[in-house]
Amino acid sequence: MRNIKLTIEYDGKRYLGWQRLGDSEKTIQGKIEGVIAQMTGETIEIIGSGRTDAGTHARGQVANFKTASEMTPEEMQSFFNRYLPRDIVIKKVETASERFHARYNAQAKQYSYYVWNSEIPSAFNRNYSFHVPQTLDIEKMTQACEKLIGTHDFIGFSALKKTKKSTTRTVHQVSIQKEGEMLHFVFEGDGFLHKMVRILTGTLIEIGLGKKDSTIIDEVFQSNTRKEAGETVPAHGLFLDEVIY
Amino acid sequence: MRNIKLTIEYDGKRYLGWQRLGDSEKTIQGKIEGVIAQMTGETIEIIGSGRTDAGTHARGQVANFKTASEMTPEEMQSFFNRYLPRDIVIKKVETASERFHARYNAQAKQYSYYVWNSEIPSAFNRNYSFHVPQTLDIEKMTQACEKLIGTHDFIGFSALKKTKKSTTRTVHQVSIQKEGEMLHFVFEGDGFLHKMVRILTGTLIEIGLGKKDSTIIDEVFQSNTRKEAGETVPAHGLFLDEVIY
Repeated sequence: MRNIKLTIEYDGKRYLGWQRLGDSEKTIQGKIEGVIAQMTGETIEIIGSGRTDAGTHARGQVANFKTASEMTPEEMQSFFNRYLPRDIVIKKVETASERFHARYNAQAKQYSYYVWNSEIPSAFNRNYSFHVPQTLDIEKMTQACEKLIGTHDFIGFSALKKTKKSTTRTVHQVSIQKEGEMLHFVFEGDGFLHKMVRILTGTLIEIGLGKKDSTIIDEVFQSNTRKEAGETVPAHGLFLDEVIY
Repeated sequence: MRNIKLTIEYDGKRYLGWQRLGDSEKTIQGKIEGVIAQMTGETIEIIGSGRTDAGTHARGQVANFKTASEMTPEEMQSFFNRYLPRDIVIKKVETASERFHARYNAQAKQYSYYVWNSEIPSAFNRNYSFHVPQTLDIEKMTQACEKLIGTHDFIGFSALKKTKKSTTRTVHQVSIQKEGEMLHFVFEGDGFLHKMVRILTGTLIEIGLGKKDSTIIDEVFQSNTRKEAGETVPAHGLFLDEVIY
């Protein structure tokens, strides 16, 4: 049996997210497993680095699966890209070591969030960014980013209820770059809780609008309650850029 | 009556092109005229700078119409962008001189065509570029661009049959820029015949693939026949960038 590592790009618009549900037609995992069945005749469950929500995109999701197939990685890649729908692309197929596990071995992840910050909407970026027409104080937002960096219990910035599993994560980088009318948020860390990137972005936007002060971040870290943090911004502005092993 | 000038951005994917047909639901012109009727109560025909084909996009299409409405340009713009579908955006509304005519007064137009030149397709650019997986000789293509610049009868590079109207046009600029895996073609001229940009791009691609020599351009100018020129590349890679007055 070989262990195959996939690097995957997808436009999440039409899907219910990464994780296969009853109706495999509507998830990225389900689509890929369907093509593997065609390709190898095997019924295989692939392991993703983590879930992505309905509507969220990926430039570098990673998954692995074991197969008895003797196809070369190149043959697999061209089979995948011929039979997958055009909004899911396999960017790389590699033979990994037997012990490689896409979820357990992930050391860090990088996400991008895009905000279209202009009074006038964009016909082209509408499915790949969140439209905020109001003026944002980017300097204030950038200062607030600093407070997020480090090791913290992020439960107050997540959609999770209190849980026995650790909700402490280390965030290495949070930055905001202005590219014309687009604000590009980058988050890098050893792991992110459910909806954490979208709630962090929502909180930074409320700080930029002047609705909240940046001290809100310290308060959420102290209280560990979700209600003080900002709104969850929409999934269609979020991209999983890279999984680092 | 005021003469209103609109600058329009649209994602052409869902539409049958600019020009209103029987079924106004499927054209950009029809959609905009529908919102004008809601906004002013007037049944108005708007004048576009020119048609765009089914599936073609625009960043700066221009149109004008006369109205008795007393709304300010700002009020009109926000009405348009509230009631138009999200893939059509009015970027600017201006009061123009009484004699301004979006088609007759157009001095020049700029178009972009995008080619995704990578073995691996792109999940995100699939609706906004044409995928060419083979290697292209960009130097040879760039040299061929030079031959297109100037005043020529472009009928052999168009979808037109012989016509009494002049098919002579002046092309000011043809360039190709490599932006990562994307090739960005720019065409600027005083006017373009039906499908001319897509046939010129198709011809340049065939030169880049080594299927045709760049002397084909001289031959088409001499013979004025379409059959020697390259294939028409798909509409979804084409953008009307700007109309110059």
